[in-house]
Amino acid sequence: MNFRSLSRYLPILDWGRTYDKNALSNDLIAAVIVTIMLIPQSLAYALLAGLPPEAGIYASILPIMFYAVFGTSRALAVGPVAVVSLMTAAAVGKVAQTGTADYATAALTLAFLSGAFLTLLGIFRLGFIANFLSHPVIAGFITASGIIIALSQVGNILGIKASGETMIELLHGILTNLGNINVITLVIGASATAFLFWVRKGLKPLLRKWGLGPRMADIGAKAGPVAAVVVTTLLVWGLGLDQQGVKIVGEVPQSLPPFSVPNVSMELVGQLLMPAILISIIGFVDSISVAQTLAAKRRQRIAPDQELIGLGMANIAAAFTGGYPVTGGFSRSVVNFDAGAETPAAGAYTAVGLAIASVALTPLIYFLPKATLAATIVVAVLSLVDFKILKHAWGYSKPDFIAVAATILLTLSFGVEVGVSAGVLASILLHLYKTSRPHIAEVGLVEGTQHFRNIKRHAVLTNPSMITLRVDESLYFANARFLEDYIYNRVQPDCGVTDLVLMMTAVNEVDLSALESLEAINTRLKDMDVRLHLSEVKGPVMDRLKRGHFLHDLTGKVYLSQYDALVDLTPKRAA
Amino acid sequence: MNFRSLSRYLPILDWGRTYDKNALSNDLIAAVIVTIMLIPQSLAYALLAGLPPEAGIYASILPIMFYAVFGTSRALAVGPVAVVSLMTAAAVGKVAQTGTADYATAALTLAFLSGAFLTLLGIFRLGFIANFLSHPVIAGFITASGIIIALSQVGNILGIKASGETMIELLHGILTNLGNINVITLVIGASATAFLFWVRKGLKPLLRKWGLGPRMADIGAKAGPVAAVVVTTLLVWGLGLDQQGVKIVGEVPQSLPPFSVPNVSMELVGQLLMPAILISIIGFVDSISVAQTLAAKRRQRIAPDQELIGLGMANIAAAFTGGYPVTGGFSRSVVNFDAGAETPAAGAYTAVGLAIASVALTPLIYFLPKATLAATIVVAVLSLVDFKILKHAWGYSKPDFIAVAATILLTLSFGVEVGVSAGVLASILLHLYKTSRPHIAEVGLVEGTQHFRNIKRHAVLTNPSMITLRVDESLYFANARFLEDYIYNRVQPDCGVTDLVLMMTAVNEVDLSALESLEAINTRLKDMDVRLHLSEVKGPVMDRLKRGHFLHDLTGKVYLSQYDALVDLTPKRAA
Repeated sequence: MNFRSLSRYLPILDWGRTYDKNALSNDLIAAVIVTIMLIPQSLAYALLAGLPPEAGIYASILPIMFYAVFGTSRALAVGPVAVVSLMTAAAVGKVAQTGTADYATAALTLAFLSGAFLTLLGIFRLGFIANFLSHPVIAGFITASGIIIALSQVGNILGIKASGETMIELLHGILTNLGNINVITLVIGASATAFLFWVRKGLKPLLRKWGLGPRMADIGAKAGPVAAVVVTTLLVWGLGLDQQGVKIVGEVPQSLPPFSVPNVSMELVGQLLMPAILISIIGFVDSISVAQTLAAKRRQRIAPDQELIGLGMANIAAAFTGGYPVTGGFSRSVVNFDAGAETPAAGAYTAVGLAIASVALTPLIYFLPKATLAATIVVAVLSLVDFKILKHAWGYSKPDFIAVAATILLTLSFGVEVGVSAGVLASILLHLYKTSRPHIAEVGLVEGTQHFRNIKRHAVLTNPSMITLRVDESLYFANARFLEDYIYNRVQPDCGVTDLVLMMTAVNEVDLSALESLEAINTRLKDMDVRLHLSEVKGPVMDRLKRGHFLHDLTGKVYLSQYDALVDLTPKRAA
Repeated sequence: MNFRSLSRYLPILDWGRTYDKNALSNDLIAAVIVTIMLIPQSLAYALLAGLPPEAGIYASILPIMFYAVFGTSRALAVGPVAVVSLMTAAAVGKVAQTGTADYATAALTLAFLSGAFLTLLGIFRLGFIANFLSHPVIAGFITASGIIIALSQVGNILGIKASGETMIELLHGILTNLGNINVITLVIGASATAFLFWVRKGLKPLLRKWGLGPRMADIGAKAGPVAAVVVTTLLVWGLGLDQQGVKIVGEVPQSLPPFSVPNVSMELVGQLLMPAILISIIGFVDSISVAQTLAAKRRQRIAPDQELIGLGMANIAAAFTGGYPVTGGFSRSVVNFDAGAETPAAGAYTAVGLAIASVALTPLIYFLPKATLAATIVVAVLSLVDFKILKHAWGYSKPDFIAVAATILLTLSFGVEVGVSAGVLASILLHLYKTSRPHIAEVGLVEGTQHFRNIKRHAVLTNPSMITLRVDESLYFANARFLEDYIYNRVQPDCGVTDLVLMMTAVNEVDLSALESLEAINTRLKDMDVRLHLSEVKGPVMDRLKRGHFLHDLTGKVYLSQYDALVDLTPKRAA
């Protein structure tokens, strides 16, 4: 294997060769900013996934490094993200109790299965599978997930228990427990939420006004959540609020990521395989769209199949170091990019920063209130909620709207797994439905050109003894019978038509079912003394038709262009 | 509701008005022939479905009458058929023990569910759903089912027990029980099989040679199976062979079809719904292709949605009269048609004939050996087995071949339900896979015309600063990203291209995902100073594009024809 093909699989060999001091300094600054941002976020997402907080830190260390070696995006920051954490909770919650060792093992097994699946997809270049998740379905899914995630944290902010996987379960839990609100928790949670919302908009301008340079103001703004963590932790510690019912993070082991082994028993694998596939696909689609958006800004390219390998290896790394499923996160990647990260090395430096934090800082977060972490999550996910996609889809096309609306409703009502499966299914079925009743236009010649258009939309020349039908769809099993019915309705015996031309410009495929229909149409028309012709048949379709006996049986001809057909089939006037 | 719209739902009003003596005489003759043929066949198929023999007769009486009222085919003969009987056995065998009252109730509940489903599909005009079962998949499924059915009867012919739903189970059952063969049963079964094979080919010519007229010879040949029934029954009775281990039909109630009520408990409905849907679709697809073939021969028309109602009502009738799922059978319909049936009234007369038989003849079949019925089934289904479809599909297209081969293998290995589900799934996935990586041709002008073809296949004129890509597929979520990748690979910065034209002749749809990709392509090309144009956009697609802001942002123009684009974008030479 030569260097070039090796570097296809190890993109690090590509950017590593040209790494210089300038890139190092940019990457280091980006790493500092991202590390500061990631500490509270990682703790919070672990909580959302039902795992102990340190799992979030562990899932951010080795996976980043592995992605740096195998991934192709220069700016993508890999780690725990909100939606995948929620999906992890939904999947693992079905096979183990939160807080048990089995739960943690199931979570890392999920990461392992997801990693293996992604890596295999990458190796066999099957990344196109992710395309079956349409943009509107993903947008709807993310919005609905954001709502569920935010609701799932309301309990932590109010100091009550309210768990569940669907909007109804969560609302029910919140409403029935409203009497048990812990007021101190509520004050901490609500203030932290309000503060974090303000930080997003107001802190950076304020720091600038105070005379900080733009970069320092940026770092300061990113550190806002850390300030919330520090202040609320000190408050709980100083006032002993944990004695008054404020839930705190508690003991967190002070260590580097542990070596952990997934449990690949047939039973657990059977239960987690489908969730792992869904998580993989959602994670990949999300991650690659972030990566492509950022790459486009710097005119870089992303190799989708290699991205699968990069994310796959990151998840396998998470499985062996006490983590849970990870993917490329939107907000952290944007922060990384905006902070000037030039290469994946920035991710590696972030990992080092987090490793230091996991050793040095964990004792300090003993008194960190869970309400603060919940506030972090709520503020982060509310930016995911965006109902504009509904309006947009409604205006553009009803089938797209149905797919989005179904995804949102089913995700809210039945949870993430049902929601995303239904979204994919709805997209596919709607597509099949549309193609099963294709648009068929009767066309005529636009005068003075050799161009043919729909007789209903344009003023065109026609010839009464010859009908030309332009079939606006590939012919395949789902619409073969529709075409037959359409033609038998259009061409009745003794209607004066002697020639029917099928204009095949839009027919990109004729499968075996459709071939049988064409043969049936040819025979039926022959009985009525109507000849069947084809025009503008595409190369690949023609190649295929030549393999059967249809062309041999055809009563008419195959014309290169529709214009040739018109000239040939129009009776010549006497000179 | 006027008469015309009423007769849409009750086709009987149509042909009933013009019914005359000539039609009556033709229908009566056809009815006699079909009745003679149906008696042994109905008994045999009931056996195949795991039901007592009379259930087959019952399922042939009222369903035929209901179809005569609601169906649109003039020649279709509705009743128990081999494949649906096998599917019934597979579905009902999962919820009840053969021979119990629960089994019979489950079978008629299955008929009820199937009838309700078909009727609903018809009322809501959803018949297109059946189109998702492609011709090759059905051909493969029928072939595999034929093999399983034949194997399932080998035990009855050998006088051993050998049951199962898959080829392996059946072969295993036969081989391990070879030591228990009942020689007398074997002699009866093998002779009956040989005789029936000979009847198919040899009896009619022989009867003609003996001086019978063509119609009488035909009736005589159709009565061949009855002769086998009579002779073997007499043998068993005369020689007391039932005392020597020959399995006989035994007591059959001497009555008209009983009134029966399906069990619509949630539990049973839940278990039978999916099988009922599969049976409905397979039955409908099979039935309508027979109906259409026969209708075409007499230039009649079939209304698919009304057919759904006809078959649905027939199945509901079966459910309330002690039957099980029915559909239009191929062999009996062809016999009916060949015998000269002119209207569905022929079916009603057949029903009367069978009703008489169920009252008068049932005591006579007490000693009928099951081996004779098994022979009837084997001879009938072996005509279904046809591996030519594999060769045909292989020659025409590999994806079709994969779908057929998968259907056959999975049906043989895992039974009918898995087989047909896998076939549908394989067809859909292969179609999606094909459309997810569309053929994209770079085109140029065919000299002397206004026609554009692939530069790789034809000698065409091109213009180096302008690339025209003809996308041979609708643009939708599954291939939107593929198009982006293709264009970013083809158009690199500073490659001398100033204009990219997307020729949209074959683009029949642009969904929301694809619209977003087009917007991304437009933006990316703009960064490279390349203008994006569209040409030959179809009416419906253009209507949709006008709803968004894409056309407003487009850097180039939309041309009615590709030729206009070429003229407009080619630099004029100095005069």
